[in-house]
Amino acid sequence: MTRIVFMLVAVVTTAGVVASLAPASGQADGEAAPIFVTKIPAGYRDWPVISVAHEAGDLNSLGAKLGNDVAIKAYREGKLPFPDGTIIAAVHWTHSPSDENNKVFGRAQSFVPGQHTNVQFMIKDSKKYAATGGWGFGHFNKDGTLGDDALMKTCFPCHAKASRDFVFTQYAP
Amino acid sequence: MTRIVFMLVAVVTTAGVVASLAPASGQADGEAAPIFVTKIPAGYRDWPVISVAHEAGDLNSLGAKLGNDVAIKAYREGKLPFPDGTIIAAVHWTHSPSDENNKVFGRAQSFVPGQHTNVQFMIKDSKKYAATGGWGFGHFNKDGTLGDDALMKTCFPCHAKASRDFVFTQYAP
Repeated sequence: MTRIVFMLVAVVTTAGVVASLAPASGQADGEAAPIFVTKIPAGYRDWPVISVAHEAGDLNSLGAKLGNDVAIKAYREGKLPFPDGTIIAAVHWTHSPSDENNKVFGRAQSFVPGQHTNVQFMIKDSKKYAATGGWGFGHFNKDGTLGDDALMKTCFPCHAKASRDFVFTQYAP
Repeated sequence: MTRIVFMLVAVVTTAGVVASLAPASGQADGEAAPIFVTKIPAGYRDWPVISVAHEAGDLNSLGAKLGNDVAIKAYREGKLPFPDGTIIAAVHWTHSPSDENNKVFGRAQSFVPGQHTNVQFMIKDSKKYAATGGWGFGHFNKDGTLGDDALMKTCFPCHAKASRDFVFTQYAP
């Protein structure tokens, strides 16, 4: 399976391996190792919507990007870089046809969330996550397990290509 | 232009005609006329996500379905019919390719909200909206104008085909 992971978009991974993701601190070699998010922020499912997204192709994903108070305020005020305390959540589901809706439409055009696949987070803490642009990245599979090492290593290099403080998602008014 | 309108999904209408949508009361003929929602519920953009949707075909829409406290509680508890006070919002945007994301992906697969097209509401009040299954339907174009008569007349007959108290959208966990 080719695994492609980009910018807080859905990835259907094999079962996550909960290992080697503990925060690295006190690095003796002087080079800070990436620190990942290992705990799901409380209450994220109730946060307001920043935007939604459909990733076609192999990802086949529908997503909702949610933001905590700090994130929503920064987005609405157009504030960049995002302030410390910003948390962006990306909830992903499969992009699945709705048989019920399509029957009513009389054509196959309706796609809704099928299975929940994962939820990803970006947490801004310019000191704690200094090694990765001030952002901590987190990936939690649908069973709550963490994304594995190979997956997590792809987060930062890809988000480094975003033109707005490592964030691709824009606010949908 | 063929106008197809179904189940709180996006519709790009021509400029809405703000007329003939005032609440009908005191009907002399004994038959209750449909009452539509003519005011956007305050704060809806901050409500939690019920689900998201992609309607392909002519609609070409990405949507976020949001719920007020009553709606979210009813959804999470699986409570049917929805209690009075339930409000469901459906925010719609065009389903538009993201050039920025696609450049990073290296392929055309990323779709995000383009233009905001409209926002629609279903408000449960079993007495006020008795003529339409206890639900008041509302449609607001991107400029804030109301959906026209022809559009509004399509809401109820279509939602009557839904199997869960006139509501198509299911909660996405």
